[in-house]
Amino acid sequence: MFFVFYNDNNVCAIFYSRFFMNVPISFLAHKAYMLRYYSLVMPAQAGSGHTTSCLSAADIVSVLFFYAMRFEPQEPDNTCNDRFILSKGHASALLYAAWRQVGVITEDQLMTYRQCGSPLEGHPTHRFVYAEAATGSLGMGLSIGLGQAFAARIGSLPYKTYVLLGDGEMSEGSVWEAVEVAAFYKMDQLIGIIDVNRLGQSDSTMVEHDIGYYEAILQAFGWHTIITDGHDIPALMMAFDQARSYKGKPTMIIAKTLKGAGVDFLQDKQGFHGKALSKDEAARAISALHKRYEDDVSDKSNFVWQSRANLCNLSDQQITASTTPQKMSYEKRDSIATRHAYGQALSYFGYQYDKIVSLDGDVKNSTYAEVFEQSHPERFIQCFIAEQNMVSMGVGLAKRGYIPFISTFACFFSRAYDQIRMAALSNAPLRLVGSHAGVSIGQDGPSQMGLEDIAIMNAIPGSVIVYPSDAVATRALVSVMVQHYDGISYLRTTRGATPVLYDQDEKFVIGGCKVLRESEHDVCCIVAAGITVFEALKAYDMLMQDTICIGIIDLYSVKPFDKATVLDRAQKSNNTLIVVEDHYVRGGIGQIVCAELANSSIYIHMLGVTDMPCSGRPGQLLAWAGIDARSIVKVVKKIYP
Amino acid sequence: MFFVFYNDNNVCAIFYSRFFMNVPISFLAHKAYMLRYYSLVMPAQAGSGHTTSCLSAADIVSVLFFYAMRFEPQEPDNTCNDRFILSKGHASALLYAAWRQVGVITEDQLMTYRQCGSPLEGHPTHRFVYAEAATGSLGMGLSIGLGQAFAARIGSLPYKTYVLLGDGEMSEGSVWEAVEVAAFYKMDQLIGIIDVNRLGQSDSTMVEHDIGYYEAILQAFGWHTIITDGHDIPALMMAFDQARSYKGKPTMIIAKTLKGAGVDFLQDKQGFHGKALSKDEAARAISALHKRYEDDVSDKSNFVWQSRANLCNLSDQQITASTTPQKMSYEKRDSIATRHAYGQALSYFGYQYDKIVSLDGDVKNSTYAEVFEQSHPERFIQCFIAEQNMVSMGVGLAKRGYIPFISTFACFFSRAYDQIRMAALSNAPLRLVGSHAGVSIGQDGPSQMGLEDIAIMNAIPGSVIVYPSDAVATRALVSVMVQHYDGISYLRTTRGATPVLYDQDEKFVIGGCKVLRESEHDVCCIVAAGITVFEALKAYDMLMQDTICIGIIDLYSVKPFDKATVLDRAQKSNNTLIVVEDHYVRGGIGQIVCAELANSSIYIHMLGVTDMPCSGRPGQLLAWAGIDARSIVKVVKKIYP
Repeated sequence: MFFVFYNDNNVCAIFYSRFFMNVPISFLAHKAYMLRYYSLVMPAQAGSGHTTSCLSAADIVSVLFFYAMRFEPQEPDNTCNDRFILSKGHASALLYAAWRQVGVITEDQLMTYRQCGSPLEGHPTHRFVYAEAATGSLGMGLSIGLGQAFAARIGSLPYKTYVLLGDGEMSEGSVWEAVEVAAFYKMDQLIGIIDVNRLGQSDSTMVEHDIGYYEAILQAFGWHTIITDGHDIPALMMAFDQARSYKGKPTMIIAKTLKGAGVDFLQDKQGFHGKALSKDEAARAISALHKRYEDDVSDKSNFVWQSRANLCNLSDQQITASTTPQKMSYEKRDSIATRHAYGQALSYFGYQYDKIVSLDGDVKNSTYAEVFEQSHPERFIQCFIAEQNMVSMGVGLAKRGYIPFISTFACFFSRAYDQIRMAALSNAPLRLVGSHAGVSIGQDGPSQMGLEDIAIMNAIPGSVIVYPSDAVATRALVSVMVQHYDGISYLRTTRGATPVLYDQDEKFVIGGCKVLRESEHDVCCIVAAGITVFEALKAYDMLMQDTICIGIIDLYSVKPFDKATVLDRAQKSNNTLIVVEDHYVRGGIGQIVCAELANSSIYIHMLGVTDMPCSGRPGQLLAWAGIDARSIVKVVKKIYP
Repeated sequence: MFFVFYNDNNVCAIFYSRFFMNVPISFLAHKAYMLRYYSLVMPAQAGSGHTTSCLSAADIVSVLFFYAMRFEPQEPDNTCNDRFILSKGHASALLYAAWRQVGVITEDQLMTYRQCGSPLEGHPTHRFVYAEAATGSLGMGLSIGLGQAFAARIGSLPYKTYVLLGDGEMSEGSVWEAVEVAAFYKMDQLIGIIDVNRLGQSDSTMVEHDIGYYEAILQAFGWHTIITDGHDIPALMMAFDQARSYKGKPTMIIAKTLKGAGVDFLQDKQGFHGKALSKDEAARAISALHKRYEDDVSDKSNFVWQSRANLCNLSDQQITASTTPQKMSYEKRDSIATRHAYGQALSYFGYQYDKIVSLDGDVKNSTYAEVFEQSHPERFIQCFIAEQNMVSMGVGLAKRGYIPFISTFACFFSRAYDQIRMAALSNAPLRLVGSHAGVSIGQDGPSQMGLEDIAIMNAIPGSVIVYPSDAVATRALVSVMVQHYDGISYLRTTRGATPVLYDQDEKFVIGGCKVLRESEHDVCCIVAAGITVFEALKAYDMLMQDTICIGIIDLYSVKPFDKATVLDRAQKSNNTLIVVEDHYVRGGIGQIVCAELANSSIYIHMLGVTDMPCSGRPGQLLAWAGIDARSIVKVVKKIYP
């Protein structure tokens, strides 16, 4: 049997249907059956999982994988492959089953689902090579897909990105951020599918099966929408044809489905979310399935499925040699804010690395990302005031080989912390740059001060935290970050201008620090970073007037931490460190130093922000927090009266 | 001159206009002039601020404060006052100027704007008593307002809540979360106003002046919308009348405005966001203003404005005596998950405290908030999968005297971390409860594991972190949290069942810990919390077989930290602590202990999660992380071979 379905309203759809080989409906129905089968068996085998969330999307995924998508199955990194993101990550069994059906993983591998050491985890992570990104914290997939779609646009690549969303996660604001930005950029490379199965985890969704609700909102945001029955295979084929060919807008396929579809005692029933069936129940479910899809249990189509790849002429992609401008030269008599030096550095390295992209949340004139925009407008993405989407877009871009530098106020990364956490599970090398760190920003007040950014970045596994004090260090550390592909790296910049401290060619490495002052008579050593380095230097001069010597370390790499150097200097400085930071003491550099030097018998005194700050002049606030030069002097003199 | 404007389409609007005294347009125009005047003067005086963002909203705020809102100016906490939230917190000068015009602050106070120690901060915080909440991280005001509106609904109070939003912040997903939830609950107590001034900080907004865009989306979400010219005072009066009387839906007034409106060289021009004028420029602007609003510089209406209060019969509010059920009794032979005990405790205390409300993000059957819902459905709010809105709603409810318990998976508080940060600046006593902490959740994998929750909560100034190991401790700590009004408190619960450890009436206090094992021969003391307490107890038994004694502390209060007890036990246990936690080591309990015990010469060994976990069985993962009993035994034997 061989059916061909044309979408009569859409010429391009017909073109595609004709252009690519057609796939029999019965074949797709059989694949859907197999996906359902595994969606029952795998969680039952594992003793946990989300069977019903898989069953609602089985038909969608069958048509998507075996009809709509164009990819080389053996080459997950193929530049021209269509991309698929399972935003509703709890339906992981369905994802793994689909790739099993494609033929790239074995039955044995499938049966390791949710077992220790298996890449087939409860929710997808980067350990499963065909998962574009870790998902499972809901509402991020569309943003990741938008990032992948941007990668296609910037690179003039022909692939489409498909994102399967649950209806429950449509209440996450991050989804609407992605919706709005995708529409603004007319991102027709992006195709979403909402699996509207009506039921969340513990309650019905707000609008249940009112698919017109989603349609109206999405259209108002500027999306092309297609409403379909999510269990009607020919209808899904038409929907995907139409979505693929639609130009000028992203498309959302709004598919009405039933949770647990295909198994009578699960179908459209509350109370089965996240419930694996027992082996007995699974057997009963499989026999119900067998009965319901009798014709589809075996494939009678005699159809030999072969994956289709996108036509991809990479030779079109000429990388034009850039004229690299003269490196900015910073003189020691200059003062320049590290945020400004960041913008200059990113612009400079943008000439050498054509994969650098800059993402901004409408603060480019504060973070100085605007300097990059001016020199590389084609690789600057204005993400507007929507930090969650911005960070997840970075994941999509990173996964497609770009080097995303994502900058906003340090405090506003707290807005996207879940996305940063998940980016780490995606093993996505995001470069995050937070400006306006600490109380030293002054009058704008506590809501604009990054005071917990080090604490939150520190908890991210494998993260790097660098915090330059001057322009030279900033440029060097941006260079290091460009080449840092191993997880999340975070650069903290300062609002106010600071003097140039280092020679032009001073070297900075991840895990290093700089000893700025040392003598044989140091009564203690100050560990400072960023703005407090200059307070420490002032304190040094003040104390020298009383012939009190102190050492100073610029801890530009907060994580990893240069234990050897800091410990050595501490031991040679009366076994005493004073950590001075423009960050909350709790979770800040002081606590990190305490943990790193635990059991080393070093006396550690911590100066930092301990209470909610107020508005004021930068100098006033440094004094208020007890982290200015005078405060350092006072503490040193208290310890050594 | 005395104008009366009726909205002919709306009977209720006419009723309101007749019922309350009418206000001359010329009076409102004069007030708008004064607001503009101060919006120029205050930032110029302070040397920083957001003049143009104030100017666009001056007419809106004039009509809102002096025509639409009903409140007792001298009683900011009056239960029946209408509420106003400045979501676009950077327009703080406008907020303070409005309250100056109301007459509750002085000219001298106004001139302390942005100065150290002044409650009139760069962005509003709780220090300004008339600010409902801290704002300035954008996109939170509507959620806070929704919480306040819920408080009106639950308490049968007549007040309305007004939220002024900027158009730039409409791209924050959290706004759409609030929009969707408010529409779902048909929250007609909530009235939003979007100041569509077209210009963001560094770029135009995505849709600039396309107010029909906002209208279409909001209507699709289920809001009542009113489009108006945001500089037309009679039109604004009609809009507010209509909004107030509209029943069954929340209303959004979409006001087309010009950024910098009223000053020709600022008006509708890019490049002036967040720019205070110099005193010379301000003088020039004021003379431009004077020219533009010549008739409004002085008030010629002879109108004596008096605030109008809501008709409020509080005697209607009968608090019905609840029948408190028998307190749950936990026997030492029982095993019960602390997340389950949390639900039971909240339900129990819900009978005693009729201000307790429970907010859920569609995980009530995982966090056990469903137990509270079953007993107190009228005080349970399903917030769906939208954690950011949920947390900010909690701020609104807390500010209106409710005791919000907000529960979700521990890891998903990372989604709302900016909101938690801002709640602290609002001094809002949120009670946050995170379930599914740590690798011990098992198969669902790393995306569902709370492993950084302690790190992020630790950085919040004044926060409390409690982490019960058993049901008795959980109940006691919920009781303590109910009565904790001083900032953010966080309860961490465990997924799996744990044995009951404590006697029914054991006392637990914020800042305490329990010494579970101690002897004169302890080679070290284990500091454990939550699930690891039981691993420590098992290790104790295993080590006793080799006649090795160890002490055990249950650190149920992670912050504040019981330094005296822990230090004492450490000193009596060979000066050695082994901290064992189901959390990332970085930012976790171990680092907190290191910082608290810095300089006390205690040897501290930290066991916790150091790498990205995988799916697996709980016991397997505890072993993988090196935090199970065997790992503890191994470490003890390594230290004391």
